[in-house]
Amino acid sequence: MKALVFLAPGFEEVEAMTVVDFLKRCGVDVTLAGLKEKIVKGSHGVKVVPDEFIEKVRIGGYDAVICPGGSPGWENLRRNKRVIENVKRAHADGKLVAAICGGPATLSDAGVLRGRRCTIYPGLEGELKKGGGKPERGIVVVDGNLITSMGPATALAFAHAIAEKLVGKKKAGEVAERMLVPEGAKLRSMP
Amino acid sequence: MKALVFLAPGFEEVEAMTVVDFLKRCGVDVTLAGLKEKIVKGSHGVKVVPDEFIEKVRIGGYDAVICPGGSPGWENLRRNKRVIENVKRAHADGKLVAAICGGPATLSDAGVLRGRRCTIYPGLEGELKKGGGKPERGIVVVDGNLITSMGPATALAFAHAIAEKLVGKKKAGEVAERMLVPEGAKLRSMP
Repeated sequence: MKALVFLAPGFEEVEAMTVVDFLKRCGVDVTLAGLKEKIVKGSHGVKVVPDEFIEKVRIGGYDAVICPGGSPGWENLRRNKRVIENVKRAHADGKLVAAICGGPATLSDAGVLRGRRCTIYPGLEGELKKGGGKPERGIVVVDGNLITSMGPATALAFAHAIAEKLVGKKKAGEVAERMLVPEGAKLRSMP
Repeated sequence: MKALVFLAPGFEEVEAMTVVDFLKRCGVDVTLAGLKEKIVKGSHGVKVVPDEFIEKVRIGGYDAVICPGGSPGWENLRRNKRVIENVKRAHADGKLVAAICGGPATLSDAGVLRGRRCTIYPGLEGELKKGGGKPERGIVVVDGNLITSMGPATALAFAHAIAEKLVGKKKAGEVAERMLVPEGAKLRSMP
């Protein structure tokens, strides 16, 4: 399984790192696609060297695309044409499309939320409605190939939900246990 | 307030990033001190550019030193003489000393845990005992200037506890709320 995580200037560090960490522990081949080529600076100043430059990404090889949030990362993400194209293409191919915090605004702009259940950082629900999405107030909302979540503190549950789709509940559960996620935490946090 | 976070090759990404993220949101001036000068690779392959090289750190200016875990990051941390010296010095000066996952082994080696309550990643309790620490099975254990925690899923509670010491409960609580930590989550997760 291969997953692509977009890394925009101003990405939310916890959201981006938690999904990479969890998925790599599950054996998923994760690529951090930088919207800048050499160093991408997070919303709290952490400087990360991306694995690949967005302009060189060939989306066909990936099973999932993931949009972290962060301010101004979520705005930089939606403004990038290559990100929008990749999200559209992944969705059209039935691949997993996931976003957290402000990230779901990019999914909305890409037109993949029409008629679908989804969530976003509190207060940004209008961004989902613009694209025809049906906002819910869930920690993680799963609707078919779409997984959306709310913010930094929900990043672990978000990563867990993505992992379940990519590698199955058993493997994802084992990884959560090694990361010391309390038993039943995911169930309790679900809407 | 100024905090120093050690970044060893093989650092746990969630643990390191969560504490940086939370503390920076609280207005703390956080420095990532790399055990390598240019790029430090995490335990799941994320490449981070540190703010400063460990050899150049002047510990006197910091209010807190923090040791993330990660494999083999926790082993690399304890083997570094500068890290051990900085932990000893910070502790002797009554500064906040914090560690998570395998990180508390470094505190044990530095001799700062003698007679103190502490915790570590499950199975590593022997590392605490070697240094005279009193292991407990808490998500976060606070004993005076020492804060220790268990692993990736406890990183948010760990960061919250550090923030409370550095900037007070009110500010730390406001930041936790913006990160969408569920109300009462910290209390429930505390021993």
